[in-house]
Amino acid sequence: MKLDLPPQTILLPSPVLIIGSYDADGKPNIMTASWGGIASSKPPCISVSLREATLTYHNIKEAKAFTVNIPSEKYFREADFAGMVSGRDHDKFKETGLTPEKSKLVNAPVVKEFPYALECNLVKMVELGLHTMFIGEIVGLVAQSEAVNPHQIPDIEKVRPMLWGSYGSMAYYGIGSRLADAFSVGNELKKWS
Amino acid sequence: MKLDLPPQTILLPSPVLIIGSYDADGKPNIMTASWGGIASSKPPCISVSLREATLTYHNIKEAKAFTVNIPSEKYFREADFAGMVSGRDHDKFKETGLTPEKSKLVNAPVVKEFPYALECNLVKMVELGLHTMFIGEIVGLVAQSEAVNPHQIPDIEKVRPMLWGSYGSMAYYGIGSRLADAFSVGNELKKWS
Repeated sequence: MKLDLPPQTILLPSPVLIIGSYDADGKPNIMTASWGGIASSKPPCISVSLREATLTYHNIKEAKAFTVNIPSEKYFREADFAGMVSGRDHDKFKETGLTPEKSKLVNAPVVKEFPYALECNLVKMVELGLHTMFIGEIVGLVAQSEAVNPHQIPDIEKVRPMLWGSYGSMAYYGIGSRLADAFSVGNELKKWS
Repeated sequence: MKLDLPPQTILLPSPVLIIGSYDADGKPNIMTASWGGIASSKPPCISVSLREATLTYHNIKEAKAFTVNIPSEKYFREADFAGMVSGRDHDKFKETGLTPEKSKLVNAPVVKEFPYALECNLVKMVELGLHTMFIGEIVGLVAQSEAVNPHQIPDIEKVRPMLWGSYGSMAYYGIGSRLADAFSVGNELKKWS
């Protein structure tokens, strides 16, 4: 049976993005966000939506830069914590034991322990209401050598990222089994048509 | 060892979004996209990035509406196919055997067989380069009764969505095991601080 329901902001799966930024005094902060995605290929851009109430919103607006750090699944405690408290009241790097490293390319910190991070310069802000989209041009990628494939591309089976199950489950999940090759398995339907 | 790499549009995990739209003659089309995410809570909005070369780009620009359909993992063939061919040359509903149902709320088709869909009216287009972000206000959600929890929210453990491993693996994956409760497990670090 089909149900007609009110609008819900549920996208499955949603990523777990750890946004790195500096405040006006150069203090590094992290915040967990789940509402974002790749926005364009040329130029390479990513979008992350933030509320004005967050410290990260103001940090990025001032510093014009941020990082998107992808945690591996073993960091679910740290990811959850970074989404529960504000950098105004907490030194989230210190309290999680994570290590900030200054990006060589942008004015934002990278989380040393995580498998990879996208280094972004702010190019556009799009105000939508309670949230504002921060669109950053990806100018570099920092990765642990163990997290990439032979072509130096982050490999999901090595990164082992977590995902958020959104409001229907209120839980984090790991990555499951490989289902099929992309841009390939669909050919089976081509033959049948 | 940390590697400093050129920019890459790699977000892990990335969702598998089946975008439903009508062309000028009312013919339904689907296209697979992976670059998008929830954009705001109030108003509830979602963003999907599309190239101007796609039929879906023009369909949405004209019809001012689209759906974001979330396939369960068993539909990996259909999802892959819908991302490999153009609706200009193919009737993708017919060739996949999927069924279009007109949304009751917006001028776009819903994929009947999939666990749920977001019904969206186009509110903004943001041109970034090769891709344009299509930002839609989510005005309703259509779900199979088997896909929601008792609060009528899509439940990832019932939806069983797939995800895309991006260019590092070029494969689709299922959802893995539950790691921890969100907005909860982080409290363990609060106590330690």
